[in-house]
Amino acid sequence: MGAVTNRIVIVGGVAAGAGAAVRARRVNESAEIVILEAGDYVSFANCGLPYYVGGEIKEEQQLLVQTPEQLWRRFRIQVRLRHRVTAIDREARVVRGVVLPRGEEFSEPYSALVLACGSRPVRPPIPGLDRPNVYQLRTVPEAVALRRVVEAARKRSSGQPRAVVVGAGFIGLEVAEALLRQGFHVTLVEQAPQVLPPLDPEMAALVAMSLREQGIELVLGDGAREFVGPSKAAGPAPSGGENADGEPATALLLASGRRLEAEIFVVGLGVRPDVELAREAGLQLGVTGGIRVDERMQTSDPLIFAAGDAVECTDLVTGQPALFPLAGPANKQGRVAGDQAAAVAAGAAREKLAPEAGRLRFRGALGTAIVRAGTITAGITGLSEKRARACGLPVAVGYTVSGHHAGYYPGAKSLFIKLVWSPQDGRLLGAQVVGAEGVDKRIDVVATAIMGGLRVEELADLDLAYAPPFGAAKDPIVIAGMAAQNRQLEIVDGITPAELASMLGANADQGDDGVTSRLQLVDVRNPQETAGGHIPGAILIPLDTLRENLDKLDPHKSTVVYCAGGQRSYIAAQILKGHGFARVQNLTGGYLAWKLYQASGRLNAAGSTNSEGQAETA
Amino acid sequence: MGAVTNRIVIVGGVAAGAGAAVRARRVNESAEIVILEAGDYVSFANCGLPYYVGGEIKEEQQLLVQTPEQLWRRFRIQVRLRHRVTAIDREARVVRGVVLPRGEEFSEPYSALVLACGSRPVRPPIPGLDRPNVYQLRTVPEAVALRRVVEAARKRSSGQPRAVVVGAGFIGLEVAEALLRQGFHVTLVEQAPQVLPPLDPEMAALVAMSLREQGIELVLGDGAREFVGPSKAAGPAPSGGENADGEPATALLLASGRRLEAEIFVVGLGVRPDVELAREAGLQLGVTGGIRVDERMQTSDPLIFAAGDAVECTDLVTGQPALFPLAGPANKQGRVAGDQAAAVAAGAAREKLAPEAGRLRFRGALGTAIVRAGTITAGITGLSEKRARACGLPVAVGYTVSGHHAGYYPGAKSLFIKLVWSPQDGRLLGAQVVGAEGVDKRIDVVATAIMGGLRVEELADLDLAYAPPFGAAKDPIVIAGMAAQNRQLEIVDGITPAELASMLGANADQGDDGVTSRLQLVDVRNPQETAGGHIPGAILIPLDTLRENLDKLDPHKSTVVYCAGGQRSYIAAQILKGHGFARVQNLTGGYLAWKLYQASGRLNAAGSTNSEGQAETA
Repeated sequence: MGAVTNRIVIVGGVAAGAGAAVRARRVNESAEIVILEAGDYVSFANCGLPYYVGGEIKEEQQLLVQTPEQLWRRFRIQVRLRHRVTAIDREARVVRGVVLPRGEEFSEPYSALVLACGSRPVRPPIPGLDRPNVYQLRTVPEAVALRRVVEAARKRSSGQPRAVVVGAGFIGLEVAEALLRQGFHVTLVEQAPQVLPPLDPEMAALVAMSLREQGIELVLGDGAREFVGPSKAAGPAPSGGENADGEPATALLLASGRRLEAEIFVVGLGVRPDVELAREAGLQLGVTGGIRVDERMQTSDPLIFAAGDAVECTDLVTGQPALFPLAGPANKQGRVAGDQAAAVAAGAAREKLAPEAGRLRFRGALGTAIVRAGTITAGITGLSEKRARACGLPVAVGYTVSGHHAGYYPGAKSLFIKLVWSPQDGRLLGAQVVGAEGVDKRIDVVATAIMGGLRVEELADLDLAYAPPFGAAKDPIVIAGMAAQNRQLEIVDGITPAELASMLGANADQGDDGVTSRLQLVDVRNPQETAGGHIPGAILIPLDTLRENLDKLDPHKSTVVYCAGGQRSYIAAQILKGHGFARVQNLTGGYLAWKLYQASGRLNAAGSTNSEGQAETA
Repeated sequence: MGAVTNRIVIVGGVAAGAGAAVRARRVNESAEIVILEAGDYVSFANCGLPYYVGGEIKEEQQLLVQTPEQLWRRFRIQVRLRHRVTAIDREARVVRGVVLPRGEEFSEPYSALVLACGSRPVRPPIPGLDRPNVYQLRTVPEAVALRRVVEAARKRSSGQPRAVVVGAGFIGLEVAEALLRQGFHVTLVEQAPQVLPPLDPEMAALVAMSLREQGIELVLGDGAREFVGPSKAAGPAPSGGENADGEPATALLLASGRRLEAEIFVVGLGVRPDVELAREAGLQLGVTGGIRVDERMQTSDPLIFAAGDAVECTDLVTGQPALFPLAGPANKQGRVAGDQAAAVAAGAAREKLAPEAGRLRFRGALGTAIVRAGTITAGITGLSEKRARACGLPVAVGYTVSGHHAGYYPGAKSLFIKLVWSPQDGRLLGAQVVGAEGVDKRIDVVATAIMGGLRVEELADLDLAYAPPFGAAKDPIVIAGMAAQNRQLEIVDGITPAELASMLGANADQGDDGVTSRLQLVDVRNPQETAGGHIPGAILIPLDTLRENLDKLDPHKSTVVYCAGGQRSYIAAQILKGHGFARVQNLTGGYLAWKLYQASGRLNAAGSTNSEGQAETA
């Protein structure tokens, strides 16, 4: 074959690619290592782009984690920027491509190849998507351009400048926060009936409430139809036919017909693995559409490894292949791919290789993710309830509300926690946490618990750090674990808002006092709280007077109790059971979870445009 | 026996006692539940007392988590304050005692008893310890009194008021912070040669540096000998002989002879389990001196349970009995003791009991603890290196230094992490983390990992939440796990500062350039860094010029490389190995760990008074 030996070529030089290169060097000092990067930068801080736009990260320079010069000086890694690879010749062990912008051809032989091509933004065929003031935020130049127009608009605008962000996923929320911080009026448009589609709808509803309180306008359940410019607005286009994309957009038309005027538009509709090269080279793709790899990040070609957004990997909860286009997995995968590629590349020259090269494995990920949007933070690890149900798993869920540190120490903020587990064996499937402070810690604790195979009730046993500024003698995760433990040990019977709603719906004969032939609903909050609203038909008996008011309830009926967050009603449930009530269930997450379920559920039921806005303000 | 049925008596009403009472009620609605508390309060925020003294917690009222009235209203729990139990008559199933302050006798029959007597402060026989301005901080009245004199002293003092805190454990540091915050000049005295004796000395040295930078004067390796008053200072005591304890102290005399003048003295020398009642009742005590209990918190008497600071429980790392006088374990133990006592108390009246009562277990704790002292936070979980060695376990340790969130996002602060594990099987034994931000999260992640049985190298696989404000694509714990993984897979050979020091000491023929007959030491930091100091004898070769300077090194010698924190020197080690160097070791934790080891080690070697102060400023 005349193939080169000990030469590692890496396609793509951001997170996974740069990580693969430096790991390869660490275990293979004598290899030639070449990064081919189509863009203008290597190893930049992808996840920092919204913070640069928002001005929290001041300088463009701060986004550059490593430069080509640094990679050469320290690691003897050759970086070729603006080198777009267009084909892999697996037979000849060569990649071919063109140098941008002029298109000179190049070819690079390899003895091992790493594909770290990343992902491509989802770009639906929306007319006007290419207009100059419709931005996406994937590269440093895009971020620089956006920040420049943002700052110019802020200075120029007579009134408050307006921006529309399309897509309310993690990036969309970060961009919305950034533009809000820059003084914009921000409208966030999402086709799904909720923000943060990976979250369960009621958890997302809490985030939505906060976004609205912060002044972000939400348009949910409605999609972008067309970005229109001034020509169109004013009548027939002056030139170039209907799609005068050279002109800036002045408004976004939505599927519902609504029209959102703005100066700046940012589109973040998610990403798809960039597998074109791999597919054309005949490498095996997985069921998710990502490149299929084993635990060594090896593709179906033993000389080719892949890492980052382009690959599918194992979801450690389901055991199934999944796509996790996230920085954490990309970095870990890159490290493994580099380690393995270094071992394979050395080939016969094994004596030049660190003897331990090729020993790393990547076992999979949980899809742990977090987003801060102004004063609210939301995180998720493992499966959401909806995803667990979609996987056909038996599912139990529990909600708890507790302060992120000791209540007697000033500044405690509420954390709303949802745990998802298997009721049969207590296996922890996932968690979602929404709150102002301390979200990241609780998500990380549950992510670690899942990796360690802890059962949900074992969260109650966790020995977590406590001093008043940091936690509580019973940490929110311990409390969530205790509540789940009570359910798993059948000490208390929990009911979710969804289950209660279906029970109430089924009780057609339900009277005004909430006492039906089969079901009574008891609100044990105090009068100041119930004055602000309660579930229709609930009997209002404050917890501390429950024992004196037992005669208002029928012990033979099925009883559901609730309070604000589920803790007081748990006490109420135990009191009622102690007094011989036949069947008592505690509404998990209390009135807060109920309200959030209502807010999200109404919209889901309506399944149409922009009804949540009304539901929320109703 | 004529004994009562379904009557639960609980001795002690703070964390464990109050927790036991409310849990008992939740599973046993018909029991009579009585708390006998010797003090003036139940269920107060023990851990909040220093923050009340420091003024962060404004009102005394905020310290009261539950009042007797609340416990009656909600839980029908009878609280008898100022009831000191003096004896348990196990035959008659009665506790007896006196009502304070007048000493009326009382007796309370029980069908199940919970001992939650807590702990007693260690009070060595130091003359003058009872002087009125020598405080301890164990109760609300003590905190109220101390805050009053603190605020008065601040107003009165012409110069800066002075305070001496004796004992640099967790509480001592919190008190020192509180007094510093109140404007005092604070001197912190500790008999051990380090602050925070549960930590390893080099980790404590980093805390000590920060305390000094914040203006706290540290006196280590020196003990309190006598609190002396003005009479003594002025000559013979005017009345009452040598111990005129009615007079305030004006100074503390130390074992070394040093004299510390101050207006306020606070003593926090740790606690011992309060087992007097249990011992006199013939209950079995454990090897640690705490009350011996099983996983149900049952003592050697099947009707008596115990929880909180008074009991010993299983150290989940060693499997051995241990004392963990901490709020987290106390709350969990109380919950289990209440659950079990409720089941036992019901006895024949089992139908009145929630059928699930008696199913909780307490399996043990890790001793996870955290303390904030001004701008520095230190946390520990599991075993320290010294405790692991004392247990005879095989021990590997690794240090890493990394930013608590992405470096390109503003405000990243260094976290110094020490992992302790078993080199044979990678079993995680413990962790210590010191830094300004994010310490609690990393300690909790490791605590959860230990509970889940993760091996140290599996920390590298953790899928933790990442967005720029919260973490890094490679979280500090993931980096620590990767470093440990490299060691466990023998990709890199680590050496600790202690091992290096012993190697250097053994090289008597060491020359000025650090090249000896057997060992060469290489500092790969850049010149700006090495200008601030380096290990004597090190050859200075910045990492990025290492490949060009290989001729300055002898590949046949044993080589130790180091940088600031251990990451660049790991790269250097791999370069040297790749160029055929026979044996290369990386100094874990780098120059920082070395300096901290020196700071602590010198003192340990000296083993005498107050030498660290000199070492630190040398």
